[in-house]
Amino acid sequence: MNDNKIGTYKFVAEPFHVDFTGRLTMGVLGNHLLNCAGFHASERGFGIAEINENHYTWVLSRLAIELEDMPRQYEDFSIHSWIENVYRLFTDRNFELVNKDGKTIGYARSVWAMISMETRKPADLFTLHGESLNYYASDRECPIAKPGRIRVAPSEPVAEYLTKYSDIDINGHVNSIKYIEHILDLFPMDTFKEKSIRRFEMAYVAESYYGDTLSFYLEQKTENEYDIEVKKNNQEVVVRSKVIFK
Amino acid sequence: MNDNKIGTYKFVAEPFHVDFTGRLTMGVLGNHLLNCAGFHASERGFGIAEINENHYTWVLSRLAIELEDMPRQYEDFSIHSWIENVYRLFTDRNFELVNKDGKTIGYARSVWAMISMETRKPADLFTLHGESLNYYASDRECPIAKPGRIRVAPSEPVAEYLTKYSDIDINGHVNSIKYIEHILDLFPMDTFKEKSIRRFEMAYVAESYYGDTLSFYLEQKTENEYDIEVKKNNQEVVVRSKVIFK
Repeated sequence: MNDNKIGTYKFVAEPFHVDFTGRLTMGVLGNHLLNCAGFHASERGFGIAEINENHYTWVLSRLAIELEDMPRQYEDFSIHSWIENVYRLFTDRNFELVNKDGKTIGYARSVWAMISMETRKPADLFTLHGESLNYYASDRECPIAKPGRIRVAPSEPVAEYLTKYSDIDINGHVNSIKYIEHILDLFPMDTFKEKSIRRFEMAYVAESYYGDTLSFYLEQKTENEYDIEVKKNNQEVVVRSKVIFK
Repeated sequence: MNDNKIGTYKFVAEPFHVDFTGRLTMGVLGNHLLNCAGFHASERGFGIAEINENHYTWVLSRLAIELEDMPRQYEDFSIHSWIENVYRLFTDRNFELVNKDGKTIGYARSVWAMISMETRKPADLFTLHGESLNYYASDRECPIAKPGRIRVAPSEPVAEYLTKYSDIDINGHVNSIKYIEHILDLFPMDTFKEKSIRRFEMAYVAESYYGDTLSFYLEQKTENEYDIEVKKNNQEVVVRSKVIFK
């Protein structure tokens, strides 16, 4: 872990961050992953605060998490994070989740774009940073599939939700973590009693705002696999998600 | 701060823990306060894990928070916590919120009962602990009013909410922090644009569970003061709250 390309961050599973089974929730894990991305980038000079000065910001595009297990209440755990690739318009950032005994219990992949805060359009990472981001690319293994396609056949929404004060982040958008909570709340408690989540994917497609009505469309693909699409005001798709239980 | 009776814990305001104004949310502050209570008690041998072994647990009864300011995104802050009083059936635990510059920006008071995990009835703290808890009582000042009475005149509910997977904690109850979020979500965004919360109170009266419908009753007391009552399934009161804006 003395590799300067890999950041390692320690956490503990707090009481209000575990679900009724005593396991860390997916929303909280997502929050920690995004924080680790922020710490790692910031420590290397390309965090949001640093690039904001030049009127750019990082936008999360995709997230895929695959888990064998989750930390239990009060357990210590740690997350490693590193960059895998830097493309012209995207970077791939990976994560490894390690439990209290040092055993790897999950991996995650994320895809980020840098956008101009004025035009909201993607920035060309090579023009902006030359090779400096690539210097941090690591060949550490992340043995889970990249985020895939999520397709939901036209149907009736299974739930609607009017966005509220606590959904909104500092940018005025529904925050990335709240979508995860709302999507998992589509499933009945019994699902989480009998099963746990093996793989979870999010595709962030567009922003939604305070007062938008989110409609949730769900298609069961196989016994344990569900694709979800969230539209705002019954028009534009804002996020898609895949949940695979085991 | 070398007083063994006072615990001090450091935090940073994470991006997904601030609201659209960039200030730490009340729910996240509440979560940190309850974590500090846990750390402080556990470090002194009377945390939940320790007393669980004897089949007792701590239950939060009241919380009152008074704020001059809130930490902004990415700012460091710290929380001091100490016990003020130990009574036969309750303890009073106080908190002080200190910003990145070392300035005190808020205080909180909380009231806790110890209950038997089998009977769910309050335990006599003196019989159980003798004088050992009182050893930790500190005379540090907490210059805010104790939690007061909250009364809501009979009316129609302003909102209803069906509890979901993400509301439920490891005990199978709607978690104390989620009530705070749901209560603040009763107010329109404009309220938080124009005002900030000066004082916030919660009274935890009874437990609610997965699948309960929560009804929110709200009475405006003065221009900036609101009392809220939450009932489950339109019968029993589960929590009451007071919000005073400035």
